[in-house]
Amino acid sequence: MILVFTGNGKGKTTAAIGQGIRVVGQGGKVLMVQFIKAENWATGEEKALKVLEPNFTLIKGGKGFVGIMGDNLPREVHEKAARDALQIAKKAIASGDYSLVVLDEINVAFSMKLIGLKDVLEILGSFPEDSDIILTGRGAPLEIIKKADLVTEFKEIKHPYDKGIQGKRGREY
Amino acid sequence: MILVFTGNGKGKTTAAIGQGIRVVGQGGKVLMVQFIKAENWATGEEKALKVLEPNFTLIKGGKGFVGIMGDNLPREVHEKAARDALQIAKKAIASGDYSLVVLDEINVAFSMKLIGLKDVLEILGSFPEDSDIILTGRGAPLEIIKKADLVTEFKEIKHPYDKGIQGKRGREY
Repeated sequence: MILVFTGNGKGKTTAAIGQGIRVVGQGGKVLMVQFIKAENWATGEEKALKVLEPNFTLIKGGKGFVGIMGDNLPREVHEKAARDALQIAKKAIASGDYSLVVLDEINVAFSMKLIGLKDVLEILGSFPEDSDIILTGRGAPLEIIKKADLVTEFKEIKHPYDKGIQGKRGREY
Repeated sequence: MILVFTGNGKGKTTAAIGQGIRVVGQGGKVLMVQFIKAENWATGEEKALKVLEPNFTLIKGGKGFVGIMGDNLPREVHEKAARDALQIAKKAIASGDYSLVVLDEINVAFSMKLIGLKDVLEILGSFPEDSDIILTGRGAPLEIIKKADLVTEFKEIKHPYDKGIQGKRGREY
């Protein structure tokens, strides 16, 4: 089944992680490949999920935000990272070992044009019926939504940033 | 901080679980108290989270759906279960031991009138600034939304039930 978690609200990545926890508990294996998100600091999920390896594997395949927040990497570096992350996911899917594969923030990789839709639509077209794939990130392209079996829009109704409250360890990462 | 995950879309409980994973990874303790959800079968999250105990504790405090799906328990039994679950949460909050307390499906307990808003608004009114509380479930009351710092509406855009596909182990529980 193809699931899409999109929208501007908080909870998309954590919902995918929670879904992975559920799958692991029922005896399945989970791979989460993160786009955009980079190795430069250890997130809470990364540290906690180590306990569940190799049943839940988290790979941070990104190089950080593109063109903002002090990013000065050549565009090619971001593109290569996204292509490599996608290859890892493809291999995992082809192995048949995983009940759930999460492509975290891949929708952002699309909108940044780090990877094209074509490669991913190809994966979705041949995705095994009895396994699940979750694509997260704001701005899911219409072509992906059309292919999906389940789509949830995470809609921001209220956010503390509106009140000037900063992101906090354990809450945002 | 008070967070509310509401709306009719999939992902509210798993988003709270994923948030808990993040908190545990950053060294905090998490308690998730589930309303409505009962002990009658082991969910995937329940089995997987055992590994993280006592850093992540999951308590199923409900007695199942009220008045549907073969429920024939007296209403008082459901009400008592909800009150007891709330007491567990209150004690945990008062202990100061938890970085995150999740009241899962509490919004449903409100709409079923198993507990009143007053008790919960009282908890929220005195909730410590540096800890987080998440209230999940469709149909969050306006009074709760007003009190919250962050609200995400999980909006169903597409759901496989529309196509007659049934809930699956590892996907729905």
